[in-house]
Amino acid sequence: MTTRALPPLQPTDFSSAFPGSSKIHVEASDVRVPMREIALSNGETLRVYDSSGPQGHDPRAGLPKLRAPWLAARNGAATVTQLEYARKGVVTPEMQFVAIREGFDPEFVRSEVARGRAIIPANVRHLELEPMIIGRNFAVKINANIGNSAVSSSIDEEVEKLRWATLWGADTVMDLSTGKQIHETREWIVRNSPVPIGTVPIYQALEKAGGRPEDLTWEMYRDTLIEQAEQGVDYFTVHAGVLLRYIPMTARRLTGIVSRGGSILAKWCLAHHRENFTYTHFAEICDIMRAYDVSFSLGDGLRPGSIADANDEAQFAELKTQGELTRIAWDHGVQVMNEGPGHVPMHLIRENMEKQLEWCDEAPFYTLGPLTTDIAPGYDHITSAIGAAQIAWYGTAMLCYVTPKEHLGLPDRNDVKAGVIAYKIAAHAADLAKGHPGAQAWDDALSKARFEFRWEDQFNLSLDPVTAREYHDATLPAEGAKVAHFCSMCGPKFCSMELTQQVRQMAADGMEEKSREFREKGSAIYLRQD
Amino acid sequence: MTTRALPPLQPTDFSSAFPGSSKIHVEASDVRVPMREIALSNGETLRVYDSSGPQGHDPRAGLPKLRAPWLAARNGAATVTQLEYARKGVVTPEMQFVAIREGFDPEFVRSEVARGRAIIPANVRHLELEPMIIGRNFAVKINANIGNSAVSSSIDEEVEKLRWATLWGADTVMDLSTGKQIHETREWIVRNSPVPIGTVPIYQALEKAGGRPEDLTWEMYRDTLIEQAEQGVDYFTVHAGVLLRYIPMTARRLTGIVSRGGSILAKWCLAHHRENFTYTHFAEICDIMRAYDVSFSLGDGLRPGSIADANDEAQFAELKTQGELTRIAWDHGVQVMNEGPGHVPMHLIRENMEKQLEWCDEAPFYTLGPLTTDIAPGYDHITSAIGAAQIAWYGTAMLCYVTPKEHLGLPDRNDVKAGVIAYKIAAHAADLAKGHPGAQAWDDALSKARFEFRWEDQFNLSLDPVTAREYHDATLPAEGAKVAHFCSMCGPKFCSMELTQQVRQMAADGMEEKSREFREKGSAIYLRQD
Repeated sequence: MTTRALPPLQPTDFSSAFPGSSKIHVEASDVRVPMREIALSNGETLRVYDSSGPQGHDPRAGLPKLRAPWLAARNGAATVTQLEYARKGVVTPEMQFVAIREGFDPEFVRSEVARGRAIIPANVRHLELEPMIIGRNFAVKINANIGNSAVSSSIDEEVEKLRWATLWGADTVMDLSTGKQIHETREWIVRNSPVPIGTVPIYQALEKAGGRPEDLTWEMYRDTLIEQAEQGVDYFTVHAGVLLRYIPMTARRLTGIVSRGGSILAKWCLAHHRENFTYTHFAEICDIMRAYDVSFSLGDGLRPGSIADANDEAQFAELKTQGELTRIAWDHGVQVMNEGPGHVPMHLIRENMEKQLEWCDEAPFYTLGPLTTDIAPGYDHITSAIGAAQIAWYGTAMLCYVTPKEHLGLPDRNDVKAGVIAYKIAAHAADLAKGHPGAQAWDDALSKARFEFRWEDQFNLSLDPVTAREYHDATLPAEGAKVAHFCSMCGPKFCSMELTQQVRQMAADGMEEKSREFREKGSAIYLRQD
Repeated sequence: MTTRALPPLQPTDFSSAFPGSSKIHVEASDVRVPMREIALSNGETLRVYDSSGPQGHDPRAGLPKLRAPWLAARNGAATVTQLEYARKGVVTPEMQFVAIREGFDPEFVRSEVARGRAIIPANVRHLELEPMIIGRNFAVKINANIGNSAVSSSIDEEVEKLRWATLWGADTVMDLSTGKQIHETREWIVRNSPVPIGTVPIYQALEKAGGRPEDLTWEMYRDTLIEQAEQGVDYFTVHAGVLLRYIPMTARRLTGIVSRGGSILAKWCLAHHRENFTYTHFAEICDIMRAYDVSFSLGDGLRPGSIADANDEAQFAELKTQGELTRIAWDHGVQVMNEGPGHVPMHLIRENMEKQLEWCDEAPFYTLGPLTTDIAPGYDHITSAIGAAQIAWYGTAMLCYVTPKEHLGLPDRNDVKAGVIAYKIAAHAADLAKGHPGAQAWDDALSKARFEFRWEDQFNLSLDPVTAREYHDATLPAEGAKVAHFCSMCGPKFCSMELTQQVRQMAADGMEEKSREFREKGSAIYLRQD
């Protein structure tokens, strides 16, 4: 097998990624919540959600242990999970943190967690975590997948990808490593992560089984759960809904089973002709996860992998079982979200959301896209951003990103950024459509800057300021162009925004009077631009 | 003012852009319709719509005059426009052409054109045109804007952009040039264009008025219409719905008037305190356009330029007037489509489509995006592909692309391609959602190739084969990897598609029997991959 080196990784920090922004902290009784404050040239500021975490730390030392005092205070308590605290009416520091972060009342946060409609993935061993919440009444979140495969990538690259992904806005990161050094890679990732880390423990269990699904045992899997929970992983994808009797339902599919975990368990089930061991041992899994407050991400092992297979019998059979498992997890005090598809054409997306809300009792939905067509490998961040925006508007709480390399290879640094930005767009578009309080303030600030020709502000307010500036400067690099009342797209005489400002002034001054005066002045307004 | 040279343009032809594809022609009585045929490694073929036009012609000579015999046959007839012929029950060669191109009955094409629900933009002087149809019962089309501004670009670059845009799938191209040599640039573009060319004549009229909107006259505008109609322009954007009384409605907007044509006319109206001359002379405009069968693209000069301004009074006032003008144009035998926004959050998109269908009597809708958020300059091909896919699903017939340079500068070659591909995705996603006959065959062919590990077929079936292959080869460049049952994304042991094929085989052979046999064979299945 041939491998090729990835391009070298240049470390990029907050201040070079976001010129004009500073990281500030909002302090309350127990918590200190980071935000990004964008300073504008007109003296105004805009504060936006910040997932980039503490900057400038040596990866070998890890991030500061923000949650250490909170956990110390409740050390030894019988109550462990955020769900259990919420049910008891206790507002934890984690809940206070997310309340400030999102601009909600802490009591509302508690009630949503208690209801199971939102989760705060926060393993008691992940002390470096800046808590965040996943639920459809909060801002839509996005997940970035990183992780090496047997073919490519190294530990250093994966930690750098983690930093890179959170810098651009990833709210959680899944470590999907399947190659060598899987434990060590994960250790570095968790110790350096300000965001919740999710994993799919069956991948490591399979390594322990020598890569042979049929040799997997419950004990291997259980030990892997404990090993990863001890490290501080915040949520586990568990494909407990892939039942033996659902597997034949995939036989006539165009693309069969496209979930790695789903196909591993399907193979185990068939090899032994026995029920999925993560289903038969589900209560024990709950007990392990409760002890650390690891949240479930109930996998959709039978999600459709092509437009042809969307919304079929196998997919919905599993979704119904996800609902059953959700209620069992809740009975054990464990937080739960549900994973969703996949490849779904636009007209079939709503049905996914409606069935999930109904069958899974409004537990947060966490979808992979969905991709709305199969014909654009190389551009699946776009095919899927279309579906992701739509399903998030309907109520999906977190979107798992898709990069341009989907279906083709392991994403590198550029792909991770492209995927994160596309998904920040989808999530924000959904926040606007849902009327999330405060979402539109960002759009308004940027559009106002645009209309007032505050170019630097327009760049600095964008999701990717450096790229926006580069694109502008490709044709108008001079500093003077940064205050010009036009850009190269239309040139000076055709700038509608400049014309509008003139129109508005004329209208304000009284149209008839102005019309005379204007004709007298001639084209003076343009002269200053030449 | 500083300008900087754009990167050099390398000519790219059909065969290097689409490996494994050939251009074929389906012949019927009067017409010969081009299609792209993709040859697959399993002996199957897939035919897809092809907009790339005849290849290999010298731009100084122009394209072959495909329509010359058709036009010669009806030379001197009192009937001119496709709408008039359709109403008389005549199926023109243009209608036959699009019927074969889209897989519909010619009579259905005729009836949709007669009803005004579809248009075939086809100036009788644009003999090089390969006819296409715009209507919501046909495949969703996309438009690419090209054109120089005073700041940047040259004629050669614009012709090359035209070829480049149609190569990747642009169904129509608008020449929005505003700089010098505007007539000559357009001449080269029309003579080399296999797709309909649209323009905004007010831009050239403004040049004639020395760049001063208040100096524009009806006569200048009329002469410009005739000049461009004579050259063979297929559709004109006319902002006749920007009425004097609507202009004050934009006063409290966040971003005022963002249409160039709209702001020019608004300034003229205010300067003279008179009604928009394209409205007061609308019947005369119809007469000119009818004589050449130039179609109307009724401009939305008051479209919203920010999320804050979406669906406001000014926008909908103009849309209602667009409906009034649509009926007048129809009375004159002129084909019409209506332009739409702009910047619209997802939850307000449907209202645009519903009002347009109702107020404009189902004339084709042609929208710019819409962009679903303002916060991502540099990525507006994505913010807008989300809205474009959605509104096309609801019934928009053509989508005007947005490139990554939107709001920032003039798009170069890479931006044009990025915009076209994003919009091909949006259009195809909408075709799938609307159940356009034949749309899903493309997705199914690609997904089948993916599932069967026919990598070369997967690349060749994608919208951008070379990029798909490059992404795959970034980590697995060896030729052997092109038949491997995995990619670097998951590596050999974790490929769900490979596992599924094993699972499927086991299920087919009888689960219980297979489970025994399988355990005996051990991991033999994997060995062949090492």
